[in-house]
Amino acid sequence: MENSFNKRLFNRCNATNNRLCIGLDIDPDKLPSNISDFKSIEIFIKEIIDSTIDFCPVYKPNLAFYERFGSKGFALLESIVDYIGNRAITIADGKRGDIGNTSKYYADAIFNEFGFDAITISPYMGSDSIFPFIQDNTKGAFVLCLTSNNSSKDFQFIEKEGTPLYQVVANKVKSLNNNNNLGLVVGATNEDQMSSLRDNSETLSWLIPGIGTQGGDLETSVKIGNRNGLGIINISRSIIYAGDGSINDIAESALDYTKKIRSFL
Amino acid sequence: MENSFNKRLFNRCNATNNRLCIGLDIDPDKLPSNISDFKSIEIFIKEIIDSTIDFCPVYKPNLAFYERFGSKGFALLESIVDYIGNRAITIADGKRGDIGNTSKYYADAIFNEFGFDAITISPYMGSDSIFPFIQDNTKGAFVLCLTSNNSSKDFQFIEKEGTPLYQVVANKVKSLNNNNNLGLVVGATNEDQMSSLRDNSETLSWLIPGIGTQGGDLETSVKIGNRNGLGIINISRSIIYAGDGSINDIAESALDYTKKIRSFL
Repeated sequence: MENSFNKRLFNRCNATNNRLCIGLDIDPDKLPSNISDFKSIEIFIKEIIDSTIDFCPVYKPNLAFYERFGSKGFALLESIVDYIGNRAITIADGKRGDIGNTSKYYADAIFNEFGFDAITISPYMGSDSIFPFIQDNTKGAFVLCLTSNNSSKDFQFIEKEGTPLYQVVANKVKSLNNNNNLGLVVGATNEDQMSSLRDNSETLSWLIPGIGTQGGDLETSVKIGNRNGLGIINISRSIIYAGDGSINDIAESALDYTKKIRSFL
Repeated sequence: MENSFNKRLFNRCNATNNRLCIGLDIDPDKLPSNISDFKSIEIFIKEIIDSTIDFCPVYKPNLAFYERFGSKGFALLESIVDYIGNRAITIADGKRGDIGNTSKYYADAIFNEFGFDAITISPYMGSDSIFPFIQDNTKGAFVLCLTSNNSSKDFQFIEKEGTPLYQVVANKVKSLNNNNNLGLVVGATNEDQMSSLRDNSETLSWLIPGIGTQGGDLETSVKIGNRNGLGIINISRSIIYAGDGSINDIAESALDYTKKIRSFL
C-alpha cells in the first residue's frame, strides 16, 4: 500500500508538517478589480500556488467555479492542475456520482484527463456509484458524509436503528477501503458529532470544510480530524480573498493558518 | 405559472404527444468504427437530433460522457445544447449539488452559460443545496429520489419513522415546489415502490431512467409515471447504439419507443 492515495496524502502532509488544503474557488466578483479578464485570473491562481506550495500540501478547486465559465473554465482548470503537477495533492471538488457505467467516465475524466489525485463524491446512489473511483489505489475519493451547511440535517441525521445516515455512510465507506484510498467529507460546523464519528471512521482520511466563513473551529477540527487518520483542513475564502487581495496578503493568511494548524497537531 | 419549467415540459410533451427523452451519452467505444474523431462525433450527435426532434420532446446529455474529454468535451456540449436551442427541452444530467454559495455557480453554469432548461441534482446535502437551482421558475431541477442501480438500496431505503429516505426526499422536494419547476429521478427498476411514490409526489415531474439495458418495464413506467404529473422516459443506449449504429436504425428505434409510449398513455 506504499503508493495508495491515503499513504501519498500522509507523506505529503508529513513532508510539509501541515494539514492545510487551499480551496481554489476563484470568484472574479470578489477579487481585486484589476483581476477581471480570464488570463489575469489564471496568472493570479498560479501566483497563489507559487507563493504557498512550499508549505501547503493540498489544493482543491471546486469545479462549480470553473464550470460557470463553460468549456473555457475547464481549460483553465486543466492548466491549473497541470501547473501544480506532482508538487502537491490535488482534489477535484465536484461531488460527482452516478450509476457505475457512468461513474467510470467521471473517474476517467477527473483522474486521467484532468490529472487530479482525488475527487469528492456524493453517496446517495450507493456503493456501485463509488467503486469506479477507487479502482486505482493511487487515486482517492472523499465521500460526502456530514456536511457543513445548515440543511445537512434534512437527510443526514435520519436514523437506521439508532445510527444516523452519516454514520451508515461512514460504515459503508470504511467497508470499501480495501485499497486505502477512501476518505470522508466532514464539515467543521458539526462539533457535537465529530468526535464519535472520528472514533468510528478509523483509517479513513477526512477532508474538513466549514472553517472560517462558515463558522467551524480550527483547533477542534485539527485535533479531532487527525485522530485515527489524517484530517485535512480546507480553507477557501479566508485565504484567497484575504486582506486587500494581494498575493502577499494571501500567502500571509495561508502561512498564518499553517502555523495554527502546526500548533494544534 | 404559464412559463414555469413543468408547464413548459408539459407543453412540449403535449405538442409531440410523447414522453420520450433521448439520453445523448455518446461513448465512441460503442459507436461504429467510422465515428472515431471528435468532429465526426459532433456531426453524429447532430444527425441523431435532426432525425428525432420532430417527435422527441426532451434530450438529456449525461455530463460524464463529455467531461471525460476535458474542456474539449464541454465545448462539444455547448455546441449540442446550442444546436437544440428552443426546439426541445434539454436536461443536463450532472447530479450536481453543493452548499448554497457553490450551487448557485452550478446553476449559473448549467442554465446561463450552457443554456440547458433543467438539471439533475443529488439531494444528500439538503434543501439549501437545491434552492439555487429553482430560483428561475422557467428552469427546472430533477432531484435524485429512487435510483435505478442495484446499490440504490444502500441508503435510499433507510426509514425515518417508517418512511424510507427516498420518500422523505420526495416530501421535501414537494414542499419546495412553489415555482412549479421541480421533479424527481425515479428508476424504472423499482416497480414495487413506484406506485405509492407516484401517489405521494403529485405535481412533481418524473424523469425515469433504467428502461432497456437496465431492465425496467416501459409500460409500467409510462402508466405510473404519468399519473399525478408528467413521467418522462429516458432511453439512452437502446436508441443511440441501436442496430448497426446508422442514423436510420437510431431514428427507427426512437420512433419505435415513441409509438409504444403513445400506446400506453
